[in-house]
Amino acid sequence: MEVSFLLNRDQPGTTDGIYPANCPTRTVLDHVTSKWGVLVIVALAKESLRWGELRRTVQGISEKMLASTLRTLEADGFVHREAQATIPPRVDYSLTPLGEDLANRMLPLMDFIAEHAESILKDRV
Amino acid sequence: MEVSFLLNRDQPGTTDGIYPANCPTRTVLDHVTSKWGVLVIVALAKESLRWGELRRTVQGISEKMLASTLRTLEADGFVHREAQATIPPRVDYSLTPLGEDLANRMLPLMDFIAEHAESILKDRV
Repeated sequence: MEVSFLLNRDQPGTTDGIYPANCPTRTVLDHVTSKWGVLVIVALAKESLRWGELRRTVQGISEKMLASTLRTLEADGFVHREAQATIPPRVDYSLTPLGEDLANRMLPLMDFIAEHAESILKDRV
Repeated sequence: MEVSFLLNRDQPGTTDGIYPANCPTRTVLDHVTSKWGVLVIVALAKESLRWGELRRTVQGISEKMLASTLRTLEADGFVHREAQATIPPRVDYSLTPLGEDLANRMLPLMDFIAEHAESILKDRV
């Protein structure tokens, strides 16, 4: 199976199928570029956060979407969930080493967007 | 208006509101991390492509979604559309300099995903 849609990008003429629709890359891409996936990863890039802190940091995310996003990112191995047996129970979320690698690739993109967003929308044709 | 959700990330204690829901960054983030936006940008990162080439390269995209994705990316200033007055008409799509900057930030992330996707899905808990 062709896994990468990028390793091939210097192969001339083979545009067909370099983004195979049923490729694992597509699934993971969907997870990490989901509307909320990016924001959760970037939020955790600085520090581990508790549930309520994440909800406040990622403005506009619903309880349901936060739960679902965290579940996906945890299953992918990007996010670590640590429940502490206190009363009330306290749950911390942090990036795994793989999640930190991901965040390191993501932050330059986010910085670019932050830098250009306002002028992009102003100049919109 | 607070534009950046990142420039603030070293400011301790200000987790509230660093991802303002109505911020331009959110809009542009939605565009460039849309399911198809990423794939179209990466496809154009190597070379300019015609409509039909894009459709084949970005496997699974519908005519409607390709049109809509290109329209958004063009309006944002990432993609340049050049129609040539031939018969049949020929339309080429390429990245603008801003789009190339964006692609350069995006490719390391895509490489990371391509590298890890298979093991991530295999190890999924």
